[in-house]
Amino acid sequence: MDLTTVEGLTSALEAGNRRALARVISHIENNTELAMPLLAALYPKSGRAHIIGVTGAPGTGKSTLVNQLAGAYRRRDMTVGVIAIDPTSPFSGGALLGDRVRMRDLAGDPGVFIRSMATRGSLGGLAQATDDVIMALDAAGFDRIIIETVGVGQSEVEIASAAYTTVVVEAPGLGDEVQAIKAGILEIADIFAVNKADREGVDRTVMALKMMLNLGAPEKFQVMHHGRMLPVNLPEPEKLPRGWTPPVLKTVAISGEGAEALMEAIENHRLYLEQSGGRILRDRLRAATELRVILRDYLLEELLARTDPGELEILVEAVARREVDPYTAVRQLVHKTAD
Amino acid sequence: MDLTTVEGLTSALEAGNRRALARVISHIENNTELAMPLLAALYPKSGRAHIIGVTGAPGTGKSTLVNQLAGAYRRRDMTVGVIAIDPTSPFSGGALLGDRVRMRDLAGDPGVFIRSMATRGSLGGLAQATDDVIMALDAAGFDRIIIETVGVGQSEVEIASAAYTTVVVEAPGLGDEVQAIKAGILEIADIFAVNKADREGVDRTVMALKMMLNLGAPEKFQVMHHGRMLPVNLPEPEKLPRGWTPPVLKTVAISGEGAEALMEAIENHRLYLEQSGGRILRDRLRAATELRVILRDYLLEELLARTDPGELEILVEAVARREVDPYTAVRQLVHKTAD
Repeated sequence: MDLTTVEGLTSALEAGNRRALARVISHIENNTELAMPLLAALYPKSGRAHIIGVTGAPGTGKSTLVNQLAGAYRRRDMTVGVIAIDPTSPFSGGALLGDRVRMRDLAGDPGVFIRSMATRGSLGGLAQATDDVIMALDAAGFDRIIIETVGVGQSEVEIASAAYTTVVVEAPGLGDEVQAIKAGILEIADIFAVNKADREGVDRTVMALKMMLNLGAPEKFQVMHHGRMLPVNLPEPEKLPRGWTPPVLKTVAISGEGAEALMEAIENHRLYLEQSGGRILRDRLRAATELRVILRDYLLEELLARTDPGELEILVEAVARREVDPYTAVRQLVHKTAD
Repeated sequence: MDLTTVEGLTSALEAGNRRALARVISHIENNTELAMPLLAALYPKSGRAHIIGVTGAPGTGKSTLVNQLAGAYRRRDMTVGVIAIDPTSPFSGGALLGDRVRMRDLAGDPGVFIRSMATRGSLGGLAQATDDVIMALDAAGFDRIIIETVGVGQSEVEIASAAYTTVVVEAPGLGDEVQAIKAGILEIADIFAVNKADREGVDRTVMALKMMLNLGAPEKFQVMHHGRMLPVNLPEPEKLPRGWTPPVLKTVAISGEGAEALMEAIENHRLYLEQSGGRILRDRLRAATELRVILRDYLLEELLARTDPGELEILVEAVARREVDPYTAVRQLVHKTAD
């Protein structure tokens, strides 16, 4: 097996070779010369996995829950890929020794593949690499792919557009925060897991979430609709199925309690999406988003490649000195290179 | 005063008219026809404010601290603009009634302007609008501009590139999280505020932060360097001044304790940046980043404007059905419209 060619890597990856998968991911992350041909070769082989996003604030124990969830799938003989883009996750190396020990049981299992990805230092670029790595795991035949992110701000929307099923993890005692964060969280949650359910206050948290769900009808499709990135015709929000009410589950990730029920809720949601047409809709939205992001970066790189670096530097300097605003500078640049 | 024209709005804004400022911000946020000419007119008038980023996890009390910090500046007769892009902030309407009451004292003060901005549902676009709103506040003559964000993941890097001084807020009891989050936080913090310093464990948190600071030399400039967005010549990291060690301060935001000291630390950092040349460097980095983001969006919009929507839809459909990968689709699209 030749792991230095696109053909060799692709067929080895499809045959379940983990080393080939790791290499493909490295090519994607480092954007090597093989990255594009690999993505083109793998893309048609993807689209079978169910992609699950798990998000929540630091301290909710979501990494441990991801661990247990992966274990639950393994007991049903399903293979699981885990992508941790959470800087506080033990999977991504951010957390304490105790957490790392806790995830060791997964690490030895060939039916599980764990990859951590950085999120920092990039303006949108990393998000695209994440999508590509998900796609590679999908093409490699993993039945379920779990993406773990910290659920604050922008990343929660990104996970919602990458995942078919989004699990939002809360914990009792973070009561005020639950209220505070709800605005963004309600719109993306397909399932709520109230973790650390052996702690005091769990019923209050469950109640608060259920109340919120009753107050605001699930607006997920509407949000996704607003978030669409290309002028593509989509079903009107009011015509979309609204038959799914996010269940609120109690879990105790440390003991594994509730992990089976969580898995079952995810599988129910998967079936719901398939039967309601929601999966097709999400595929279209994701395709539109991906096209936009890739197109944008492609056009930028193309223009920069044919721009004189010295000229660029003069423009940056002028903007930094407030002699010209960046919008006017951009128009100048585009006009000039168009000549 | 005619608040419907660029000239009228610009001169009213400069004269301190708050209604003009609010209108300008609306034009920016809604990207109206006046937005571009307004930005072009205001840009040369900006560049005087000191921009302060305040970031930290939910539950650290950073909104209350921002409130107190604004109060400290007001007592020195400086005007303050606050931009809350934190979904958990009372400034942005995300939090509980108690928090909103607590910030009422600021709301009545004409020397303070508070604006909240959403971060959701956008891929980078909102970040640009934030920069533009900062610029408008700057041109309106505010002495200090405070941007409040949740410090997890991507947003912390964005705040570091928008702000001259970044304050990272921690709290005792979130001990494990401090450790976990440090990777990203150390690199962007100019000042640490350990809030809720009347609580148990504050000294442990302070110690932990100081230890981390000793372990890793401040790498801020290096990170910024890696993060540069256009191929612009910048001083080599090793040639940059490294004379600033982030101080670790204790604050109790609810009582206001430590707010004065925090303000003084910020002012010290401001002087340090001016004397070391760090401010000029950050202006260049920011200009390069802004140019890149605006250029990217400009090129995308331009291409989409001359693309047949029907053709676009066919491509999205093909990508969604995995018949073609998005990279190949993008190349097809660009090639076609270039004819």
